[in-house]
Amino acid sequence: MTTTISTDQDIATLINVFTVNPDNQQQLIDLLDEATTQVIRQQAGFISANIHASLDGTRVVNYAQWRSRDDLENMLADPTASEHIKAIAALAAADPHLYQVTTTHHP
Amino acid sequence: MTTTISTDQDIATLINVFTVNPDNQQQLIDLLDEATTQVIRQQAGFISANIHASLDGTRVVNYAQWRSRDDLENMLADPTASEHIKAIAALAAADPHLYQVTTTHHP
Repeated sequence: MTTTISTDQDIATLINVFTVNPDNQQQLIDLLDEATTQVIRQQAGFISANIHASLDGTRVVNYAQWRSRDDLENMLADPTASEHIKAIAALAAADPHLYQVTTTHHP
Repeated sequence: MTTTISTDQDIATLINVFTVNPDNQQQLIDLLDEATTQVIRQQAGFISANIHASLDGTRVVNYAQWRSRDDLENMLADPTASEHIKAIAALAAADPHLYQVTTTHHP
């Protein structure tokens, strides 16, 4: 499967920007991959999670897609997910927001 | 054309997170669309720009893809692009970083 970005999809996009000490960037990525594989991927309404490492080491971005805001909030309320989220929050400052795609441009 | 996120693409991903006063969010989006349509889209190595508005009004994210870091830097050095970038910087605080996609997850 491939993740696509499009204005035509009626979905909830969560972009979560983590600010991290470069020494901990890889550990943060491992925790995000683990949480997604073990818990989040199984939740109703999950479409995709796409983990990005900044080349300067100071950021990690999770570009995630959910069927709806309700599905995302149900996941966040799940106690197993909370355990993972706590471990991640101990390592990095998160700046999560829900977004809509307003425009896409190509050559 | 559709934007895709994949670990298989050997490209440079620029994620630029703008923090903005909600009153100016739409104006910022308009400026980004204008800069992309008038200047950036024509630059060598441009693959895509995908503008996202946070539902809470406080963020705009440009998820952009370039063939290489050099192509991106050539665009940033272009005087016409600089004019647009200055107008954008006057309206919002930018946090641009280059990224690589490390992992993608699907159900």
